[in-house]
Amino acid sequence: MQGVEASKRNSHLFYSFLLLSFHLTLSLANKKAISKDQPCKHMVLYLHDIIFNGTNVANATSAQIAGSKPPLGDFFFGKFVVFNDLITGDHHLLSPAIARAQGFFFYNMKTDYNAWFAYTLVFNSTEYKGTINIMGADLMMMETRDLSVVGGTGDFFMTRGIATLRTDTFENIDYFRLKMDIKLYECY
Amino acid sequence: MQGVEASKRNSHLFYSFLLLSFHLTLSLANKKAISKDQPCKHMVLYLHDIIFNGTNVANATSAQIAGSKPPLGDFFFGKFVVFNDLITGDHHLLSPAIARAQGFFFYNMKTDYNAWFAYTLVFNSTEYKGTINIMGADLMMMETRDLSVVGGTGDFFMTRGIATLRTDTFENIDYFRLKMDIKLYECY
Amino acid sequence: MQGVEASKRNSHLFYSFLLLSFHLTLSLANKKAISKDQPCKHMVLYLHDIIFNGTNVANATSAQIAGSKPPLGDFFFGKFVVFNDLITGDHHLLSPAIARAQGFFFYNMKTDYNAWFAYTLVFNSTEYKGTINIMGADLMMMETRDLSVVGGTGDFFMTRGIATLRTDTFENIDYFRLKMDIKLYECY
Repeated sequence: MQGVEASKRNSHLFYSFLLLSFHLTLSLANKKAISKDQPCKHMVLYLHDIIFNGTNVANATSAQIAGSKPPLGDFFFGKFVVFNDLITGDHHLLSPAIARAQGFFFYNMKTDYNAWFAYTLVFNSTEYKGTINIMGADLMMMETRDLSVVGGTGDFFMTRGIATLRTDTFENIDYFRLKMDIKLYECY
Repeated sequence: MQGVEASKRNSHLFYSFLLLSFHLTLSLANKKAISKDQPCKHMVLYLHDIIFNGTNVANATSAQIAGSKPPLGDFFFGKFVVFNDLITGDHHLLSPAIARAQGFFFYNMKTDYNAWFAYTLVFNSTEYKGTINIMGADLMMMETRDLSVVGGTGDFFMTRGIATLRTDTFENIDYFRLKMDIKLYECY
Repeated sequence: MQGVEASKRNSHLFYSFLLLSFHLTLSLANKKAISKDQPCKHMVLYLHDIIFNGTNVANATSAQIAGSKPPLGDFFFGKFVVFNDLITGDHHLLSPAIARAQGFFFYNMKTDYNAWFAYTLVFNSTEYKGTINIMGADLMMMETRDLSVVGGTGDFFMTRGIATLRTDTFENIDYFRLKMDIKLYECY
């Protein structure tokens, strides 16, 4: 009878250990069980770009610095723009800034408008401090297009994910607004 | 004797649990057990770059947009080229396009040809839809040189890896072809 | 009594298995248990940038290749510089080179000095062979600012981490030196 009691006590110990091991395992390993439908963070942001036309110094947030001469096609192939754009939480230009987007883009197609972006979202608010680094092709003929979130710092330490762009408006050649859906899949 | 029977039954339960825990653990954690010899995907691609010379609008896939004036050395230091290059599965320029490479490179050495690349492979075929983002130094004096695959989208969601470049040919200053060995080590 | 002995033997077997499972689990999963305080590698490097002024061909390591005309503000908005800079282990320009930094930066603020960098650290010494790829905003008004290490090759295969920059000196407009604190959190 002592044998039965002892093995029962042992059993309980084993189960407890087993469960603990199991949970630790899952909690640690889960960090890499990435699912497209379950980002660890999701943000919707709007990027406002006001191109420098030579006179709008007060409002401009971006400037062309290079291009192809003579032109290669009719769609600004090679036109290179550096920007420091306003980021808001809705589509109003005059809404409070919640970040800046610092980086560049250039056009790169002969037969249509098509661009390539690399930039950093710089957050410095009560909600977030830190940066998110993004790069990828902006296939402008698609309704939405995905760029890569390749890293982050501060509150976004070591993050990775996807930034989905959508053209929200394009007014003349002076102003455009992008809706940015940021989905982060690695959060630390 | 009942004690022995009970502990035996318990034993089997323990073993089963243990094995299950063990397997779950390995299958989840394995995602990060990266080995250089075992990419989760391997592709060989050829990049064709035809530089715009002012007259070849129909064929050109890239254009210089900036450079250093006066020159710094004799190896195009600072020459900056935007491209939207054809990607094929073998080294024939007229083979079917399986992707485009959109991005830029620039030369950056005084004493030899040496470049730096950032670009996106854009796949839109029956086989693959999505993008792969790449950046790094192209140490042209080396027979092969490794760049970083820093992200991906679509079929290449969140991927990372290595892109190994090899100069396949360099004809005049108008055309060059790179062999690109893409090894992905994170696939989701 | 035999029952007790058998269950004791089984107990030992269970414990051993459990512990083994436990350890394997932790060792594999730990790779993703990233803590800001415990990088898997830490390096302190100094970057020396000597800007080409048109005459210092022998010493120059960087050259401006584009900019905004007319200017947008008074802080070089859009000024774009390609570099191949010397990396040393201390702040002396004449110390042995332990790497090169190949890449570019540009200024992007109307109201203050502020820059954006993307570059590759190229190591080719007895200690290290391989590259580290870095990008992000250089918020020059901050005493330190964090960029993302987005990938690596060779001895730095698939690495990720943070590069913390600090301006070590800024002499005239010809020379600046950055202290770079590289903390890697993924090492393979």
